Amino acid sequence: MVRTRDRILKAALHLFNERGEAHVSLAQIAARLGISEGNLWYHFRTKRDLVGALFAELEERIERNLSREPAAAGGHLADFGDYARQSFRDIWEYRFLYRHRFDPEEESELAQRAADLAERAHRYTERILTEMVARKLLAATPQEIIELAANAWIISRYWVEYLQERHGLVRITEADLQAGVKQLFALYRPHLTEAARAQIKAHEEPRKLARG
Amino acid sequence: MVRTRDRILKAALHLFNERGEAHVSLAQIAARLGISEGNLWYHFRTKRDLVGALFAELEERIERNLSREPAAAGGHLADFGDYARQSFRDIWEYRFLYRHRFDPEEESELAQRAADLAERAHRYTERILTEMVARKLLAATPQEIIELAANAWIISRYWVEYLQERHGLVRITEADLQAGVKQLFALYRPHLTEAARAQIKAHEEPRKLARG
Repeated sequence: MVRTRDRILKAALHLFNERGEAHVSLAQIAARLGISEGNLWYHFRTKRDLVGALFAELEERIERNLSREPAAAGGHLADFGDYARQSFRDIWEYRFLYRHRFDPEEESELAQRAADLAERAHRYTERILTEMVARKLLAATPQEIIELAANAWIISRYWVEYLQERHGLVRITEADLQAGVKQLFALYRPHLTEAARAQIKAHEEPRKLARG
Repeated sequence: MVRTRDRILKAALHLFNERGEAHVSLAQIAARLGISEGNLWYHFRTKRDLVGALFAELEERIERNLSREPAAAGGHLADFGDYARQSFRDIWEYRFLYRHRFDPEEESELAQRAADLAERAHRYTERILTEMVARKLLAATPQEIIELAANAWIISRYWVEYLQERHGLVRITEADLQAGVKQLFALYRPHLTEAARAQIKAHEEPRKLARG
């Protein structure tokens, strides 16, 4: 039973991402899995139930990403990069949810959980940036750290929507997500210290040599 | 006849902004104006017609803002500020449209016009920033200018959505918009030259004196 449930979620996520949530019916999800609608209905009665379960999956992934201790790791510039890349990966894999609008009446609990997640992500980014300032990798005042974390969130969270609105893209590729990481990095670049720039250079040199 | 049409548009904009487009019916708009539904229907058959007409109004305002010559004005830092403030004002006054999702099939023409507007706004911002670099107010490479313009657009365009998602705000105030201008300024601040900082300081000093 548990396996069927997981298979349904996986198929729903795939179809929602590919075709857009509004264009996918429960019947199509059942058909894709070769199960009866009754079987699907046993696990999820409505599309909203599916959205709720997929949101819970995403929530768990984000919590995992937020549970890593910023001060624990070694090279902090690379760490921060990992955190950002993981965020973009989550957005990519659950991209339909980033276009979903929670109904304030019917889905108020999910909307609240989404707002709570956003709040924790802001705090976490602020902690990473504060740590980077302490390690002299970043130059920013406490006020600038708050502003940077908010701008970083806005750029990351709305990146997929931005691509779709500006370029009319229906399908987003991995390369489009990479471009998002680059945009985010552009936000931080002017705040990096000489030491941080030296780290980047040291990291890039061996690659260039390997290529040349 | 023209006047009734304008009154309908004004009432529709007000109600869409205040209550959300989905929660406003043509009947409510007619009731607010004290006209019959038949009279309203004579001008606009569907809500989609109203959205199209209001989008055309916004488009005209944005075009007006984009038609000002960046190189023509005197103090460029203040000019850029004016342009940003006008953008946030437009977003504020037509805020329901910034939450509206154009249907790719039924509203493909509007979606295309919105994408074209975004494109022109990017180019315009790039021209302003290039001009500021030429006047030694901003330090940025051509590549950084492209990245800055895109980040500026993302922060401005999604600011209202961000407030609503993060803080669950239903009604956005003028102060919330001011906070958006501040966020946008945070993006540019590290790129400002000493000359630009001196301009800001010179601008702030008299105010402080006036207050003190």
